[in-house]
Amino acid sequence: MNIHGQPHRTIEGNPTTRTARILDQTLLPHHVEWRELRTLDDTAEAIRVMRVRGAPLIGATAAFGMFFALNANASDAGLQHGYDTLLATRPTAVNLRWALDRMKRVVLSLPVDQRADAAWDEAMAVAEEDVCTNHALGAHGLQVIQAIQAQKEDPTAPLNIMTHCNAGWLAGVDWGTALSPVYHAHQAGINVHVWVSETRPRGQGASLTAWELREQGVPHTLIVDNNAGHLLQRGFVDLVIVGADRVSAQGDVANKIGTYLKALAAKAHDVPFYVAMPVSTIDWTITDGVRDIPIEQRSAREVTHMPGLNDEGDREEVLITPADTQARNDAFDVTPAHLVTALITEQGVFEPAAEALKAIKPQP
Amino acid sequence: MNIHGQPHRTIEGNPTTRTARILDQTLLPHHVEWRELRTLDDTAEAIRVMRVRGAPLIGATAAFGMFFALNANASDAGLQHGYDTLLATRPTAVNLRWALDRMKRVVLSLPVDQRADAAWDEAMAVAEEDVCTNHALGAHGLQVIQAIQAQKEDPTAPLNIMTHCNAGWLAGVDWGTALSPVYHAHQAGINVHVWVSETRPRGQGASLTAWELREQGVPHTLIVDNNAGHLLQRGFVDLVIVGADRVSAQGDVANKIGTYLKALAAKAHDVPFYVAMPVSTIDWTITDGVRDIPIEQRSAREVTHMPGLNDEGDREEVLITPADTQARNDAFDVTPAHLVTALITEQGVFEPAAEALKAIKPQP
Repeated sequence: MNIHGQPHRTIEGNPTTRTARILDQTLLPHHVEWRELRTLDDTAEAIRVMRVRGAPLIGATAAFGMFFALNANASDAGLQHGYDTLLATRPTAVNLRWALDRMKRVVLSLPVDQRADAAWDEAMAVAEEDVCTNHALGAHGLQVIQAIQAQKEDPTAPLNIMTHCNAGWLAGVDWGTALSPVYHAHQAGINVHVWVSETRPRGQGASLTAWELREQGVPHTLIVDNNAGHLLQRGFVDLVIVGADRVSAQGDVANKIGTYLKALAAKAHDVPFYVAMPVSTIDWTITDGVRDIPIEQRSAREVTHMPGLNDEGDREEVLITPADTQARNDAFDVTPAHLVTALITEQGVFEPAAEALKAIKPQP
Repeated sequence: MNIHGQPHRTIEGNPTTRTARILDQTLLPHHVEWRELRTLDDTAEAIRVMRVRGAPLIGATAAFGMFFALNANASDAGLQHGYDTLLATRPTAVNLRWALDRMKRVVLSLPVDQRADAAWDEAMAVAEEDVCTNHALGAHGLQVIQAIQAQKEDPTAPLNIMTHCNAGWLAGVDWGTALSPVYHAHQAGINVHVWVSETRPRGQGASLTAWELREQGVPHTLIVDNNAGHLLQRGFVDLVIVGADRVSAQGDVANKIGTYLKALAAKAHDVPFYVAMPVSTIDWTITDGVRDIPIEQRSAREVTHMPGLNDEGDREEVLITPADTQARNDAFDVTPAHLVTALITEQGVFEPAAEALKAIKPQP
């Protein structure tokens, strides 16, 4: 995808220096700044403070983190230290564990002196595969969008797609998940318009999705999260597409806090609600997602403070509550499968149900 | 209710100067500042920019505005000018029109030289009656809360009440609507805990409700609006109480944007959802609220910018989106009656249905 008209990826491995360059998403939309990752600690910090975020990108970044860990210490202890350090950064996104397991599997049987080289190649492969996965997912999603457009009375009228948080190219290495079908539709000439939900507390919709849609020239309008029910009730939404941080084996979807409210409202107005994610987002060890997916609790400061750009054009964080207000900050919620119309993956579009998903379960 | 331990009202008429003092709510929670209203224009501006807000307080403030209008020009033309100017300030809250109609009715038959005096007395009466109404409403609401508490397995455990926006004493002259039952319960020794929903875009939950609950010593926790579904799903909410800006004759409820999402989530988890409001909030001319209640559109800037306190303790507004992002800002949504458990009014607790509400319809 483009930044100022130039193609970029959110993480770019440099084979010469064996470092990885990330777009620092905490500074968007106001500043486009790249940051070099060189060590395990750099990488863990970048994931923890959300310089990179989005389930697929967390996975790809963690893969480079494993290379850095092994490049410093390729022993089994070094491997495990890297694994544990990275796994502890974010508890909800399952792609993180998926990527770490994949890296571990690849290097564990190798002699110590070959591990770093193999890890570099594998991290590059994880990133590259994410691009292909999201592209394939987008092509399947395009068919879903085309089918919905075909049912509209006026096929030239804007097709209104609501999304939540940022599951765009900034959430993957390229293309993104929820927005990949949107980009495909836009490129196919469909008159798409995106309702971008702000996504408090961290405002990934307002800061990231609005920014990346603008960079790609896709028409969009920002709303506060509270407005989703009203727009769905008034018939201003043709479909909802969101990403996912973890999907259970029966199709329950953990995603950014607030997703569940949109799913309830979509259901109330018979608007299709799609979840777009790579198959690696499915946690086959969990069936009942509402009961068993762990929900990350983040700092109260994300709720009580808001970062932005002040009148002088400087980045500033303002307090929006009384000074000593207590806040609770659940980062995710779980949408039960019965509210999800379908899961859009790189392997096709699937009913969110245990039986249907068995078809794509990787064989051990 | 108290500010720093001293009892206050949100609007205080001074019979000596015949001015009205308002707490400037745009500066809360960071600054407690009072502002003197002396003219019709002062008053219209205060309502328009939301120095005063909340349906009952808008009504009371408009009543003083009618006095200022008549004090300047007591002719029929002056009366109508005051009426039209004030009615145009906010389109959704029906208490505004109710208060203006009441003022007009009182003075219209009087000789011009008696109108200002009568208007002053009537404005003071509107304000005083609002206090009594909200007190009575709170007493009825207390019974609702006691009944829910009696069903809890552990009656000493906190009773978790979720609210939205600010329908507290800051939204009325005193006591408030949604929070009046909460204050009554707190004073009755019930172990209440309030989930305060931030209420983007203007953050009345974060800035006003958190502040007034703190001033009264009521335990509370701030959440982002997105978190409502998750907390309801997890069983962390015993009841929801919100206020209303306009209620239709069949019980559809227009209230701050985001109310509808909470109502859907409460319904999904069988948690009772109450609307507390004076009978004057009912618009008897409208039956289908979803179809016919006008929804105020406010400035995009409320969505793209966020005011708060910077590190130096100064009030500052920060931009939270790309510089040129378009936003849509519906200020209210409509919750259909079938999602509302009951309406809590000063005349008792009523089923939200045309037949039940007929009992409290004022006779012409």
